[in-house]
Amino acid sequence: MEDKHRIIDMISNPSDIKLLSEPELSILCKEIREEIVSVTSTNGGHLASSLGAVEIIVALHSLLNCPEDRIVFDVGHQAYAHKLLTGRLSRFNTLRKLDGITGFPNPLESEYDAHPSGHASDSLSVAMGLAYASKLNGDSRKIVSVIGDASLAGGMAFEALNHIGQEQLPIVIVLNDNAMSISRPVGALVRHFGYLRASARYRQTRDAVQGAMEDGGNVTQGMLNLGRNMKDSVKHLVIPKAMLFEQLGITCTPPVDGHNLHQLREMFNVALQSNGPVLVHVVTKKGIGYAPARKNPELFHGVGPYDIATGKVHKNPNANPKYTSVFGSALVNEARKNKDIVAITAAMKDGTGLDPFSSEFPDRFIDTGITEEHAVGMASGLAAAGKVPVVAIYSTFLQRSIDQIIIDNALAKRHVVFAIDRAGLVGSDGPTHNGVFDMAYLRMIPHMRLMAPSNEAELVNALHTALELTGPVALRYPRGEAEGVALPEEPQSWPVGKGVAVRQGSDAAILAFGHMVKYAQAAASMLAEEGISVRVVDMRWVKPVDDEAVRDAAATGFVLTVEEGTVCGGAGSAVLESMARQGLSTPVRVMGLPDEFVEQGPVDELFDRLGIGANGIASAIRSQLGR
Amino acid sequence: MEDKHRIIDMISNPSDIKLLSEPELSILCKEIREEIVSVTSTNGGHLASSLGAVEIIVALHSLLNCPEDRIVFDVGHQAYAHKLLTGRLSRFNTLRKLDGITGFPNPLESEYDAHPSGHASDSLSVAMGLAYASKLNGDSRKIVSVIGDASLAGGMAFEALNHIGQEQLPIVIVLNDNAMSISRPVGALVRHFGYLRASARYRQTRDAVQGAMEDGGNVTQGMLNLGRNMKDSVKHLVIPKAMLFEQLGITCTPPVDGHNLHQLREMFNVALQSNGPVLVHVVTKKGIGYAPARKNPELFHGVGPYDIATGKVHKNPNANPKYTSVFGSALVNEARKNKDIVAITAAMKDGTGLDPFSSEFPDRFIDTGITEEHAVGMASGLAAAGKVPVVAIYSTFLQRSIDQIIIDNALAKRHVVFAIDRAGLVGSDGPTHNGVFDMAYLRMIPHMRLMAPSNEAELVNALHTALELTGPVALRYPRGEAEGVALPEEPQSWPVGKGVAVRQGSDAAILAFGHMVKYAQAAASMLAEEGISVRVVDMRWVKPVDDEAVRDAAATGFVLTVEEGTVCGGAGSAVLESMARQGLSTPVRVMGLPDEFVEQGPVDELFDRLGIGANGIASAIRSQLGR
Repeated sequence: MEDKHRIIDMISNPSDIKLLSEPELSILCKEIREEIVSVTSTNGGHLASSLGAVEIIVALHSLLNCPEDRIVFDVGHQAYAHKLLTGRLSRFNTLRKLDGITGFPNPLESEYDAHPSGHASDSLSVAMGLAYASKLNGDSRKIVSVIGDASLAGGMAFEALNHIGQEQLPIVIVLNDNAMSISRPVGALVRHFGYLRASARYRQTRDAVQGAMEDGGNVTQGMLNLGRNMKDSVKHLVIPKAMLFEQLGITCTPPVDGHNLHQLREMFNVALQSNGPVLVHVVTKKGIGYAPARKNPELFHGVGPYDIATGKVHKNPNANPKYTSVFGSALVNEARKNKDIVAITAAMKDGTGLDPFSSEFPDRFIDTGITEEHAVGMASGLAAAGKVPVVAIYSTFLQRSIDQIIIDNALAKRHVVFAIDRAGLVGSDGPTHNGVFDMAYLRMIPHMRLMAPSNEAELVNALHTALELTGPVALRYPRGEAEGVALPEEPQSWPVGKGVAVRQGSDAAILAFGHMVKYAQAAASMLAEEGISVRVVDMRWVKPVDDEAVRDAAATGFVLTVEEGTVCGGAGSAVLESMARQGLSTPVRVMGLPDEFVEQGPVDELFDRLGIGANGIASAIRSQLGR
Repeated sequence: MEDKHRIIDMISNPSDIKLLSEPELSILCKEIREEIVSVTSTNGGHLASSLGAVEIIVALHSLLNCPEDRIVFDVGHQAYAHKLLTGRLSRFNTLRKLDGITGFPNPLESEYDAHPSGHASDSLSVAMGLAYASKLNGDSRKIVSVIGDASLAGGMAFEALNHIGQEQLPIVIVLNDNAMSISRPVGALVRHFGYLRASARYRQTRDAVQGAMEDGGNVTQGMLNLGRNMKDSVKHLVIPKAMLFEQLGITCTPPVDGHNLHQLREMFNVALQSNGPVLVHVVTKKGIGYAPARKNPELFHGVGPYDIATGKVHKNPNANPKYTSVFGSALVNEARKNKDIVAITAAMKDGTGLDPFSSEFPDRFIDTGITEEHAVGMASGLAAAGKVPVVAIYSTFLQRSIDQIIIDNALAKRHVVFAIDRAGLVGSDGPTHNGVFDMAYLRMIPHMRLMAPSNEAELVNALHTALELTGPVALRYPRGEAEGVALPEEPQSWPVGKGVAVRQGSDAAILAFGHMVKYAQAAASMLAEEGISVRVVDMRWVKPVDDEAVRDAAATGFVLTVEEGTVCGGAGSAVLESMARQGLSTPVRVMGLPDEFVEQGPVDELFDRLGIGANGIASAIRSQLGR
């Protein structure tokens, strides 16, 4: 590629961008897109949103002095161009790979990354903290947040806007409005944006701005100054309908074309000179520059490896169905029999497998947008009125609504089912998306019951059990391919708090949670060949934990617990607590995810590295038994 | 009192209210206020806000058919009138007492209580769930949320508003605008309300509405219909500046006088007939009807017993200083030496002891309003820019920002100090305010360190230690009076992860966390007189837990852990995990708060009932040792 004399190869840090002319910047944008498409076609990744934000990022870096100035990316999956421009081009082919560069901004990876993005709606709070520190320090760092329209619906973003509007610190909020949350736009706010974009006034203003820019570009400054000071009646003409933000005290620009570098740079330049908060409303097209992604931005939101020429995503024809889709089908089956079931997602209809449900039961399907707190609070209201809400949220995002689970649901003993997808390590997305805490944070909650099915057939049974119980119930299952076992013709109910011994043995016992059962069985088979007889129990329930299974396991003389979750307060700790309650003092080894943030990489490789795969389990037992 | 022939005594359920004339309703309001003042003067309670909401509640119950119709109170501390009108008058003198009626709405106490309120900003989500269920069920229950201006700043409320605006379900949102969050109003939103109240248009509209009502009351309906359908230009005249909500698709009324029953009933009546969401903007006066509370609504927000005639709050002249104020003074001392310290509160300046700090360092004090997520996210930004944020939040409310602690702070190893007040049981406020989960939810987070000082001198040292470390650090301390020990002249640093043996002994060991050390010492003294020699360790650190202290304790042959927090995943589990890691299999008894929601009542009495006071500890040891 070097022989092509690419501009991108000459950018060793963002200050090099300042030397480029606008035509050169345009070429740079093209090269960035090629690089992003090339690497994500083999590594997978967040393609569509990263393509959509290329000009925004190039324009910002052409004006800012990073890392003194700070860009806080909301969610962060749109930041590939930023990575390419901040010294990570040569390693970009390791994107999302084990020991490679991460798919999200990461301050531990680069001083240019202001914040470990990954969860939506936090960038404005972080920007506010940075701006407040600048005020105290008396420095003049520029602070920019780049936030999508979907993220603005998250309550945390509103809390920050409200505070930013009060404090009037100079923060530039780049609203990356691609009219598309991860799944589909939801909420009145999004309609508000749509109105802004569609209004004749917008088009008029856009044309006026464009005209002014072509005439020399000074009118924009004038317009913004005007916006801050002029009378309401006039202001409405210039800043059509952005009253929502204006009323919070934040100056808003008219929408600008997010793929017109000249317009962007003009508008950013003006905004960066303001001494108060400015929201720059940028309209972008997700997936722009790569036709298949433009055509199907949902598919290319977070995508696996694909063929560049055709846009066809590589699929393993022999793959087992995914846990997610097994859950989705099972819920449809249950909902056909129980008309009170209502499914709730927080902007992850496809990700949580609710697509078929939403088609078959559109009235009973609720997508609240990226608002986990509201989704869980709303579930409480539905349950109070006799509905059976099933809230499907990834483990990592459910962290946002722990208080709502406690106060709004568990305290009132509401029958709400929490379907926790992506529980455990998630692979390429890394630490911000790993679901490692749910067993610890749900186990602490009174009235909560938590299941960890060991395969997809058990998932179907666990869901059925959850729907038959009363009070708050949760089930956790991992990301990706299931085990390939046959699904039950009719789902079966599990007795509450009872595990199942899946292998008898007398030298030691493994109490395994979720799909760790398969690793436990593999380890037991290996050990059997060495003459070590190991009992394996599929514990099924993290809470209430099966005291009897614990007692039987203790009788072997050594207990090993294994779970895909943190060892601090997780399922293994539940076993330890059970033993203490029962006055048992058999040696126990608690195996699970370590007390650290686990990096990205293939889950099986990570398991091996962390010593919690079959080999790790087997060697722990050998070592305890002195073999 | 019965001989006075009070109206209140004839209200056995809210349907009785419908029989009353407006003059009688006014008398009822007066009687309700007398009852509230009388009972809170002996029991303490949330006086000012409950006085402010009397007419709202009477007006609502005069129009609704509860419990079919549902009133969801946000926070819920304003709902005393509701309790008095829904069959709880005769037990109202047990308000907030052990086994008495609770200080917050509680569905387990009354079918008239729609939701276990206590944490702010959740009522709109719950109302949305109830309304959605009504839509699915095809019933026509009326759904009302009563929410204060301060609660609307919480992100969860905005998430719900955005969804409510989209779905257009008939929810009546009563904005109880008393221009006062618990401490002081914060945020641009509040300024927006102030503008609404102050605007000439408001006064004009109010007069117009009042005039119309006096003429027969039908104009209001017309105005609202108008508001939904007419052109913008006209709308602005009728609904001045409430554009913020209007733009989210929620019809807003002009502000109405919250103490004028006639106006309230008219406006509620109209709003309840709408087939879409309506926000009724009610302007109330906190503390109205009791002069001392009106004069000092902050003091009478949540107040202890007081003298009705003078409004003087009863104080024990011999009381020790409170943990809260010791923390506040210690932080001021630290801040004098370290100019990078910034203190953050989420609307609890007084409650968290930050009043002196805010006076001495106004620039370094940030009150974000009831926005725990934003507060913690902002701390991350401040820390990234070299400041040392100290975030002081009650344990129960910090549950709102667990995800922000994990992703925005711990993952980036930000040096943020979490000062966790009200850790443990809080007494009269009961389960929604008990701080029982923080050890479990903080312990699961990588890089986190968590201290539990055993007295106020140790609190000073713990704070000092937290400020000297790097990365995320938390300290937890209980509500109320400290132990009465002398404070250190100069604060001392604790070695990380090291406890201190405060009593030697060889028959058993107690590993005690926080102020449970004093109960452990009392138990050890009792046992010493019986010839049982017990080692007592002040563990100081919940994370990292002191492995050496655990090993030494195990050497005695029996370990008892005691903490003021849940036994599911808390400090005792940390000890169990430590033992498993070290291959120790000594019998352990984990003592702490049970896996249930603990009710209100004096903390010492609750401890005895739960068996975790000195007597409980002593008898557990006796029983283990077979004495």
